[in-house]
Amino acid sequence: MTTLIELTAAEAASQIAQGAISAEGYMRACLERIAAVEPDIGAFAHLDPEHALAQARAADEGRRSGKPLGPLHGIPVAIKDIIDTADYPTECGSALLVGRRPVADATVVSRLRDAGAIIVGKTVTTEFAYFSPGKTRNPHNGEHTPGGSSSGSAAAVAAGMVPLALGTQTNGSIIRPASFCGVFGIKPTHGLVPRTGVLPLSHNLDHVGPYARSLEDLALVLDVIAGFDAGDADSRPLAVRNFREIATAEARQAPRFAFVRTPVWDQAEGYTRDAFEALAKSLGDDCVTFDLTDSFAEAWDALRIIMAADMAHNLGAYADRGGDAVSDVFRKLMAQGRGFNATQYLDAQALARGLRAALDELFKTQFSVLITPAAPGIAPKGLESTGNPVFNSLWSLTGLPTVSLPLLKHDGMPLGVQLVGASNDDARLLRHAAWLVAAFG
Amino acid sequence: MTTLIELTAAEAASQIAQGAISAEGYMRACLERIAAVEPDIGAFAHLDPEHALAQARAADEGRRSGKPLGPLHGIPVAIKDIIDTADYPTECGSALLVGRRPVADATVVSRLRDAGAIIVGKTVTTEFAYFSPGKTRNPHNGEHTPGGSSSGSAAAVAAGMVPLALGTQTNGSIIRPASFCGVFGIKPTHGLVPRTGVLPLSHNLDHVGPYARSLEDLALVLDVIAGFDAGDADSRPLAVRNFREIATAEARQAPRFAFVRTPVWDQAEGYTRDAFEALAKSLGDDCVTFDLTDSFAEAWDALRIIMAADMAHNLGAYADRGGDAVSDVFRKLMAQGRGFNATQYLDAQALARGLRAALDELFKTQFSVLITPAAPGIAPKGLESTGNPVFNSLWSLTGLPTVSLPLLKHDGMPLGVQLVGASNDDARLLRHAAWLVAAFG
Repeated sequence: MTTLIELTAAEAASQIAQGAISAEGYMRACLERIAAVEPDIGAFAHLDPEHALAQARAADEGRRSGKPLGPLHGIPVAIKDIIDTADYPTECGSALLVGRRPVADATVVSRLRDAGAIIVGKTVTTEFAYFSPGKTRNPHNGEHTPGGSSSGSAAAVAAGMVPLALGTQTNGSIIRPASFCGVFGIKPTHGLVPRTGVLPLSHNLDHVGPYARSLEDLALVLDVIAGFDAGDADSRPLAVRNFREIATAEARQAPRFAFVRTPVWDQAEGYTRDAFEALAKSLGDDCVTFDLTDSFAEAWDALRIIMAADMAHNLGAYADRGGDAVSDVFRKLMAQGRGFNATQYLDAQALARGLRAALDELFKTQFSVLITPAAPGIAPKGLESTGNPVFNSLWSLTGLPTVSLPLLKHDGMPLGVQLVGASNDDARLLRHAAWLVAAFG
Repeated sequence: MTTLIELTAAEAASQIAQGAISAEGYMRACLERIAAVEPDIGAFAHLDPEHALAQARAADEGRRSGKPLGPLHGIPVAIKDIIDTADYPTECGSALLVGRRPVADATVVSRLRDAGAIIVGKTVTTEFAYFSPGKTRNPHNGEHTPGGSSSGSAAAVAAGMVPLALGTQTNGSIIRPASFCGVFGIKPTHGLVPRTGVLPLSHNLDHVGPYARSLEDLALVLDVIAGFDAGDADSRPLAVRNFREIATAEARQAPRFAFVRTPVWDQAEGYTRDAFEALAKSLGDDCVTFDLTDSFAEAWDALRIIMAADMAHNLGAYADRGGDAVSDVFRKLMAQGRGFNATQYLDAQALARGLRAALDELFKTQFSVLITPAAPGIAPKGLESTGNPVFNSLWSLTGLPTVSLPLLKHDGMPLGVQLVGASNDDARLLRHAAWLVAAFG
């Protein structure tokens, strides 16, 4: 028998809507799980069980009163602690912001609430969503990093504490923790999900996206949080898709996969290279091998220039006045960001646009989805680092949507398969992913 | 009796639509005027009278065949030579680009053609729309500059060669020539008119806008060229307004004017300061005096950083390989742009956003339109410079819409009154301007 905490969000929402389970009962199950494993995992920065239960009771009351229910009615969601919430502090993993209380919810949070979701707490992030780790441990093995910067969100979903959580990615912060913790995660197309009310690191590179234990759940969240927001200058006025319907539609044929090693292939572990070569081979005629042209090799430098300069602009004052409360790794990034020229920055932005256009052109004619590792290997041992985002940088820079699928294992630890889709075609990326999961899951 | 070349575009379009005059007859009148005055004024970089006449005859043929007519059917329009046209070269005022032939029209040009307009030729621009002058002379006095960089467009409209022309502004290149040449010009809200197919100087600062001999004509052109274009990343998905209807609607009461000296007031000529003090006074209770807060003084540095860095990024290669074909003033700008840091550039962008938001807030509560000089004084004598854009920089940086109205004179030369409106409220800015023209014109 499936216990409550094993339900997907879609299953739980359906059962709550039908009255088969109560929002309060479901919330209690999640809170009991949190109480049991949180001391070992440390996924939460802020948690208020009574507040969560009160909202769950209100959700049950709302259902009984006959009000129309949103698609996430009564579903607990955990929120990375760089995303503003009016009812919880938002401290961004920095000692400088302890006790900071936003006056308003981020757009994605208010959209979740409008859909009936209950914000169950705030999850641990690295310092300012960069590299200095928080307290979170990998649920599969506490001696290993959960990845970062969305450490707590990925770990909370992986450990069954919540069915859904939001993370953010500037370089590799959604996909890498998804890979390390063995959950589904999506970094949507840049601009699809608004960042209004989210700590700005780099408007060029920042993405918000969900973690879940099924692809359908990712689509369910995108249906709620995606869409134009005038408060985010990179938000684009595109027609809203029905992500869940498209993502769960039966695939009539295999997607046209292309296996791409990328210029950082030699940084992957041997077992990773072997596993992906084997995966590509096993797809037979449905998968070609695709080599990126030389200009793609410049993407990693371009990302570093844009990220460091944008972060120095947005967060440099914290390093200047923060004293010992700021990590060396963060201070070093600020100094690096201040050293780049404006024209280096603009050249890097132009490269990003060019690479994205080139990839989108290829998606039109050559393949429908790329396969590549989500990380160089399994979560590294030790908590002093959150691992290497090198397999994520190209897709953060170009803004293409990527998912991590928990399909592989090594030494008992998860290893994610990263799929990359055409920009603004996130729904079909999820359907292609569902095909692969059905074939190999 | 009004001669053909004295008609406004709106009048001419109406008469052509009714069959009272022919597009060919109207075009011949414009071409005769061009033949008569162009040797003295030098407004055109490229002109093909036979091509223009052939299109005019086709326009008459189209009307006779009963096809629906666009709002500019048969109206000659001149286009600044940094805006791409498929049927004329586009050389951007640079010896490096002599003979350059775009493969496609800029979005604004194709929108004009779709509305029935006839592109009568390309007008002189300064080198890469920066400061090194072309051949154009001021129609009011050939020893004075017409202003720049949209020198030919402003001069062509002022001299009665065409009823309409397009210019562009990055710092002061629409409004200053309008002031110097004594025509109406509008720099629309940043993002309202797409720049796809226009030489990019600075996507942050570049604007496209029309010149005309009436405010109604400016609105007529905006109705055609404004609106979202996915090819321009700064284009915003706003509801399209009926500019002409709003701009020409009877004003029920005087706008709430605010006279703003700006931090560069001491750079205005004495007669300019006197004229604007007197104008503000004559408006009585309908005009308050408004002083900008200190942070506005940083706007001029911010514009210089953004403009120089963006232009170095977009056009630096021309300076590198151009040898003697590139002016010293342009080469100096490229070097300056390469010297700025990425964080200086990002700080300048943030200042621009902040000032724009502050101004828009003030427009909501304090006043409906600002009055300020369009230029420090009349067109300076001499053709080696195009004059000083210092009264335009703040509005280019913040992207607010501004018009220049040919209401003042000094020493027989025109001096423009610049009105500034709230962002994305260009139509009402034109109506406020019409009120002032009716009161003082």
